[in-house]
Amino acid sequence: MTGEGPLVDAGLLSPVRAGTEVETAVGDRAWLQAMLDAEAALARAQASLGTLPEEAAAVITEAARADRFDLRALALASRETANPVVGLVQALTAEVRGIDPKAADFVHRGSTSQDIFDTGAMLVAARALRLIRADLARTAQALAGLARTHRDTLMPGRTLALHAVPTTFGLKAAGWRALVLDADARLARVLDEGLPVSLGGAAGTLAGYLEYADIDRPDVAADTEHPYLDRLVDAFAAETGLARPVLPWHALRTPLADLAAALAFTAGALGKIAVDVQALTRTEVGEVAEPTAAGRGSSSAMPHKRNPVLATLIRAAALQVPVIAAGLTQCLVTEDERAAGVWHAEWQLLRECLRLAGGAAHTAVELAEGLEVRPARMRENLDLTGGQVVSERIAARLAPHLGKAAAKQLLTEASTAAAASGRPLAAVLTSMPGHGLGADHIAQLCDPAGYGGAAGALVDRALADVPQSPPPGSTV
Amino acid sequence: MTGEGPLVDAGLLSPVRAGTEVETAVGDRAWLQAMLDAEAALARAQASLGTLPEEAAAVITEAARADRFDLRALALASRETANPVVGLVQALTAEVRGIDPKAADFVHRGSTSQDIFDTGAMLVAARALRLIRADLARTAQALAGLARTHRDTLMPGRTLALHAVPTTFGLKAAGWRALVLDADARLARVLDEGLPVSLGGAAGTLAGYLEYADIDRPDVAADTEHPYLDRLVDAFAAETGLARPVLPWHALRTPLADLAAALAFTAGALGKIAVDVQALTRTEVGEVAEPTAAGRGSSSAMPHKRNPVLATLIRAAALQVPVIAAGLTQCLVTEDERAAGVWHAEWQLLRECLRLAGGAAHTAVELAEGLEVRPARMRENLDLTGGQVVSERIAARLAPHLGKAAAKQLLTEASTAAAASGRPLAAVLTSMPGHGLGADHIAQLCDPAGYGGAAGALVDRALADVPQSPPPGSTV
Amino acid sequence: MTGEGPLVDAGLLSPVRAGTEVETAVGDRAWLQAMLDAEAALARAQASLGTLPEEAAAVITEAARADRFDLRALALASRETANPVVGLVQALTAEVRGIDPKAADFVHRGSTSQDIFDTGAMLVAARALRLIRADLARTAQALAGLARTHRDTLMPGRTLALHAVPTTFGLKAAGWRALVLDADARLARVLDEGLPVSLGGAAGTLAGYLEYADIDRPDVAADTEHPYLDRLVDAFAAETGLARPVLPWHALRTPLADLAAALAFTAGALGKIAVDVQALTRTEVGEVAEPTAAGRGSSSAMPHKRNPVLATLIRAAALQVPVIAAGLTQCLVTEDERAAGVWHAEWQLLRECLRLAGGAAHTAVELAEGLEVRPARMRENLDLTGGQVVSERIAARLAPHLGKAAAKQLLTEASTAAAASGRPLAAVLTSMPGHGLGADHIAQLCDPAGYGGAAGALVDRALADVPQSPPPGSTV
Amino acid sequence: MTGEGPLVDAGLLSPVRAGTEVETAVGDRAWLQAMLDAEAALARAQASLGTLPEEAAAVITEAARADRFDLRALALASRETANPVVGLVQALTAEVRGIDPKAADFVHRGSTSQDIFDTGAMLVAARALRLIRADLARTAQALAGLARTHRDTLMPGRTLALHAVPTTFGLKAAGWRALVLDADARLARVLDEGLPVSLGGAAGTLAGYLEYADIDRPDVAADTEHPYLDRLVDAFAAETGLARPVLPWHALRTPLADLAAALAFTAGALGKIAVDVQALTRTEVGEVAEPTAAGRGSSSAMPHKRNPVLATLIRAAALQVPVIAAGLTQCLVTEDERAAGVWHAEWQLLRECLRLAGGAAHTAVELAEGLEVRPARMRENLDLTGGQVVSERIAARLAPHLGKAAAKQLLTEASTAAAASGRPLAAVLTSMPGHGLGADHIAQLCDPAGYGGAAGALVDRALADVPQSPPPGSTV
Repeated sequence: MTGEGPLVDAGLLSPVRAGTEVETAVGDRAWLQAMLDAEAALARAQASLGTLPEEAAAVITEAARADRFDLRALALASRETANPVVGLVQALTAEVRGIDPKAADFVHRGSTSQDIFDTGAMLVAARALRLIRADLARTAQALAGLARTHRDTLMPGRTLALHAVPTTFGLKAAGWRALVLDADARLARVLDEGLPVSLGGAAGTLAGYLEYADIDRPDVAADTEHPYLDRLVDAFAAETGLARPVLPWHALRTPLADLAAALAFTAGALGKIAVDVQALTRTEVGEVAEPTAAGRGSSSAMPHKRNPVLATLIRAAALQVPVIAAGLTQCLVTEDERAAGVWHAEWQLLRECLRLAGGAAHTAVELAEGLEVRPARMRENLDLTGGQVVSERIAARLAPHLGKAAAKQLLTEASTAAAASGRPLAAVLTSMPGHGLGADHIAQLCDPAGYGGAAGALVDRALADVPQSPPPGSTV
Repeated sequence: MTGEGPLVDAGLLSPVRAGTEVETAVGDRAWLQAMLDAEAALARAQASLGTLPEEAAAVITEAARADRFDLRALALASRETANPVVGLVQALTAEVRGIDPKAADFVHRGSTSQDIFDTGAMLVAARALRLIRADLARTAQALAGLARTHRDTLMPGRTLALHAVPTTFGLKAAGWRALVLDADARLARVLDEGLPVSLGGAAGTLAGYLEYADIDRPDVAADTEHPYLDRLVDAFAAETGLARPVLPWHALRTPLADLAAALAFTAGALGKIAVDVQALTRTEVGEVAEPTAAGRGSSSAMPHKRNPVLATLIRAAALQVPVIAAGLTQCLVTEDERAAGVWHAEWQLLRECLRLAGGAAHTAVELAEGLEVRPARMRENLDLTGGQVVSERIAARLAPHLGKAAAKQLLTEASTAAAASGRPLAAVLTSMPGHGLGADHIAQLCDPAGYGGAAGALVDRALADVPQSPPPGSTV
Repeated sequence: MTGEGPLVDAGLLSPVRAGTEVETAVGDRAWLQAMLDAEAALARAQASLGTLPEEAAAVITEAARADRFDLRALALASRETANPVVGLVQALTAEVRGIDPKAADFVHRGSTSQDIFDTGAMLVAARALRLIRADLARTAQALAGLARTHRDTLMPGRTLALHAVPTTFGLKAAGWRALVLDADARLARVLDEGLPVSLGGAAGTLAGYLEYADIDRPDVAADTEHPYLDRLVDAFAAETGLARPVLPWHALRTPLADLAAALAFTAGALGKIAVDVQALTRTEVGEVAEPTAAGRGSSSAMPHKRNPVLATLIRAAALQVPVIAAGLTQCLVTEDERAAGVWHAEWQLLRECLRLAGGAAHTAVELAEGLEVRPARMRENLDLTGGQVVSERIAARLAPHLGKAAAKQLLTEASTAAAASGRPLAAVLTSMPGHGLGADHIAQLCDPAGYGGAAGALVDRALADVPQSPPPGSTV
Repeated sequence: MTGEGPLVDAGLLSPVRAGTEVETAVGDRAWLQAMLDAEAALARAQASLGTLPEEAAAVITEAARADRFDLRALALASRETANPVVGLVQALTAEVRGIDPKAADFVHRGSTSQDIFDTGAMLVAARALRLIRADLARTAQALAGLARTHRDTLMPGRTLALHAVPTTFGLKAAGWRALVLDADARLARVLDEGLPVSLGGAAGTLAGYLEYADIDRPDVAADTEHPYLDRLVDAFAAETGLARPVLPWHALRTPLADLAAALAFTAGALGKIAVDVQALTRTEVGEVAEPTAAGRGSSSAMPHKRNPVLATLIRAAALQVPVIAAGLTQCLVTEDERAAGVWHAEWQLLRECLRLAGGAAHTAVELAEGLEVRPARMRENLDLTGGQVVSERIAARLAPHLGKAAAKQLLTEASTAAAASGRPLAAVLTSMPGHGLGADHIAQLCDPAGYGGAAGALVDRALADVPQSPPPGSTV
């Protein structure tokens, strides 16, 4: 039974995630399932401690399948209570009653909306994070390959939009990979430290859970050696696969803020790669090109275009996530045991962060694995300034003889003259007096190939820096 | 033919807009229709100038119905080209060909993806803004009623969480209304100055449109007295009902930034009302209550709860829109004739701003029309401080005799003593020497009812401030 | 008497505004003076109505000079009361007493901290806005000159990082100017609609003002024909030169939100110019260069560098203002008659928006007035794709003969072949069968100079669009 | 020699940090010193490897004192080059030359502006973080004391603005402490993982450093067993006390994004405490009060006010930092080896985050150490609903007999009747048929003291959770 209402979102406005696994994993259907998973896990946890009949837990688990519910109706009902759980509990109770009337009263026993919603949200987030990490691992692997292959591929280093000194494409790719590993490490930390179950009851004291336990099994509730409090949290964590929090966190929103930070970082890190690819793709630069595929990157108007659409999608995500994540972080400031509106503001923001960062990671795999690198064009561009790209080097070589300031001044003048005349810097320098360098020496110094610095060694060091917490199943 | 893919969004995470008209008006289905409207309007505009066959325009108009298209397939295809228009043009062309093969080549003639997308977005925004304005008008009307009714209903004015001096509920409601009118004025301005059609062609020069005109009707294209440029923009604006821009705005994003600002204002203004309602709803305060309705505001755990869910939903929206709107505003910084990613980042952000602000406005109608006001409780609360709420007044009265500083100091001491002992300020003051006021005079001064200031007059003045640009069909 | 404490901010981290007029105009010294101006104006307003002695108003005005006060001490004292006005009132009272003890009690008569602070803030904002508008006017004028001069200067139009179709530099400059005019119009509107005085008293009812009036001049206070309420607001507005609000706006923060929106727009609009200049400055593109000046743009390392520092500074501001402005807009959501913290959060955010937008505008003047444009390089770059930049045109020309899809397909194939081989598109096309175009016709169609579309006409229309509200003293 | 220019910032608009240690630690003077520290450390590092004369390093170290420089002049000069380092190098060179002309050429040897600025920024950040952590430690300690003392102090738990079920103040304080520990852990991680030195040279290849080494000591530069690259980074890290990065991070902005996230978290966590304190301080609630001090919290108008100014200041910071931090995070998206403007946008944003979070932490110490808690008022408030606050419990007790839904419905009706009549819930229930509970049992169930749930046990568990990484010198 599925009502979907008017077509609110089929991905039309967010191609970066349209059709990706993460889009489905954080969609309303999946979110509903996760909340049902939380209800079922809660029942099983209580059953495992003897405070709820095993049969009831089994029936609740059976009923807790998203395809039994009218999603749109639940969404509409949520306006009445400001959250979707109140209506869901009613609908789930009805489903359970349909299977076994005796089980109906054990649905949501002792619980509160926020326990179910937040536990569901953590399940959704954990699933999404695993998808994202797998894509980051593939991206990092592809970038490692690019760094290795192009360890010594010279290209212009660019600062403030201008050629600065030579660098290598390998070093650039190694830097991209380092950022991807940084992003992955931040996501891994959030997963490893544990996205927690929510178990607090109406106002964070677990009173409802304890009360029902005392009603059903006073012996269990009163066992001071094995406090029911701890056993219930442990059992719920075990049933969901989530972590055990120290305190109920209805109004202590560390998990949300941590997710926001890690996802904003991820989107931003991938955005850096995207804007670099765009800068190198420019018609005048032409040092890289996106992977080609039939129809990919075509324009509705211009037959010759092969637009860098992957970088475009990634950058679009990177522009959105940090501000949306800031909205999430602000929700730390939430009054009382549960604020009226601050909790509610988190939901769609969290989903948007997850699917945008996830879509960007998914897109980055294809970009990194298929990027076309053009060493010849890089080398040509490196010569565009006629040697000015190594002016720093020549100034350094002259400094011991002329003094540092005079050396820099001489190179500034020579560079200006070279730029104005279009002559190579070497020729201009050779014709200038007072520096004591011969034409051959000048020519040698002006060769960009001699001024790559430690680029190659840095690539080696960066590639030796392996990710410390590979995602399950990853081959990185 | 409708594919909707996995259930990405049925409104489950955003109850503030779930099921509202504005949610549908900005949904993917509506957005698709708006882009089709743009294609059809472009064809009709060209036909009206003779540069496209009337029959072709009619067929294109016939084919341009959203229910003919597979929305999910279009969304998925948009990943290939970074926007949904390229695929839409192909699909629309196929539909047109199915009706009349001769018309197919006239689809999207001379156009570019951004012209269609942005014109569609402006159509969507204009429709959404009209819905929002209608809800703001109803809200303002209801608030005017509250202000009028409670012009002289005394209540504590509160600053920095504490009772300050008396005010009236009418003045508070008049302030809320003033903010709603301000929001409406900002939306009206965006609508009245005109959300513009987008008509620039591949890079903002309209070259494609002019080229096709020159091919089809060289006489029309060459008419210098009636430049085709102007005629085409005028005709497109007329067909869509949108405004005529001075320049193509592919990379001049004023309309988006204006929408962002007006929508952030709207959400923020409504958010002010929401947090005030929450503060007055607190169990200890109890001066207002949300309208009751069966099931409304119930809790999944606590039978006695009547949660202020309307204010909750509005506040949740108000927390989200400003940061999302900032993301939109940042997209002003967009390089070239169309940036790779900056344009693309706007789409979902714009929709989110529209539907959150719209959902908040829709929710505010119900809140304002049904708000329960409790004058007796207000009066009780006003007495809670035993007269300290008018300490300012008494200090003023004593100032001419004692000097201002000494008078304030005396009242500070009396207030401290009153707070510590729980005695009324009047009693404390009466027992203090040196101020020359008799018990009766003190009692009179300490009556909060005598210190409402200009509250009533301000309400009158505020209600005389009528909205200048009522929405069409409004009775305000 | 001036204490400045440790050197908190000399502009070191924000070169975009270091040393500009607007930095001084919004600095702590100027802010202090504006608050003192508000106190003095309030006294004069009261005096003008007879409720305060003229002599006292004169003494207060005399004492209200910022250089009489220890700014750092006031800042430190503000921690005790969460705002700087409480301490300022004490210090001002002491100064006044030093001149004339009888006047001391008339300082801040009936007033509240927020009235003084907010009125001061509006004075500061109004002064800053006028500075910004003057700089925007100069910038717009310079850009108009560029647009006129380069009305027909062909250059590549670029979309998604790639050459699209030809455009002109004039059209680009006209677009920049349009954005600057849009920014100015938004600032003008804020100024023209009027930044308001704040006059509400302790909780927005003006009770304190009315009480003192009733004490001092019961006849004036009781005059129903000329209500003191209106007369006082009018007089205060007249004394400050600010506007008269309908209601006290302690908790109705429209003026702040409007400033935030207009300033974010301004920074974003200038940021668009900056990133365009950067894209065109790139070593490989070289179509524009920033104005040269001795030492300007030099690097600490590389003698040959002439960094585009003006665009750099502007872009740095454009990256900051929108998020900071979002912080301001959020402060619309403020509970009660004055929220504890929400008002206080606005202050530094507002200043930062003003000085960053103002610094960017000041920097833009120099950029626009001195920008070096290189038409020859533009023309060279336009030929880089060997004619592919007009593939759209040729496809249009072939569409009537081959059908639109087939024509586009043919051009896609020809462009791919041209790109792969490095041969001009015209040569490739000439060697391809089936299109029926002769070599001469192809050559003519492939000339970018023939495909500028309406660029020139658009420049004319844009330049005819004059700013509607020129700043005072402007010659635009 | 100190020029400070016009008084840009004495703290007037940001009382939360005015006069705090962190304000000075991140001020322009301190920032200048940190950059000088970086220059001196670089020279000493090179000297330690033999590639720079020891004497020169000593002279540079001697000259590198902030009070030798005209800060305002450096700020103004930074407009010419878009960063303050170019001018600083010139000024430092002049200072060094004044001491020993031979040393002048060894200033900034092989270096680039960003290496010096970023290393200086990390020094500033590290110093600020240590100050913040010390304040968080004191705050956490005070909160632990409150949690311990009030482990069993009953108060109303509040959700969506209404009384929900009982909780304890100890649990609330334990939650606050948990958030503070979370914040501290995030700051500690940033410090422990290491804020890194920046050492990349002009474009991240260290070419300039290697070139000078090769000029001065070819043997050292060529030693493959002990690569100069690694030795130089190690030596620079050792001299500064900062960490050693894997790669130069001119365009890999992980450290900045990490700082942004940790500081936004810190401000948000403290903001949660602030809004809770405000909610409990409300006149009608009165369950806590801020520590009193002479003059603290006074109003300019109302003698009776004792405003919660500490919470006000903290909340003001909490409203600002997340959006400002988002601006920092966005700077991850930075093109090339150094972007024109993106790097430059970070500086003031970073400082603002540091001093606002630091000011909030400093203020929180005083709030936590002095908070006045009022258990009697809490108990009174708990009775305000006449027992409805435990409606959940009674429903649970009736569920086994009536069925869960019927039990909840009965309690809803009883609560509604109680609220309408003002009678205690127990009385209403006693008079209702069909539940089988006797008056005594009802009275016992309705006692809030019996329904504290696991609050006490949770406090114990939370207090057992000790911070894992205490700040140096802390006694926590």
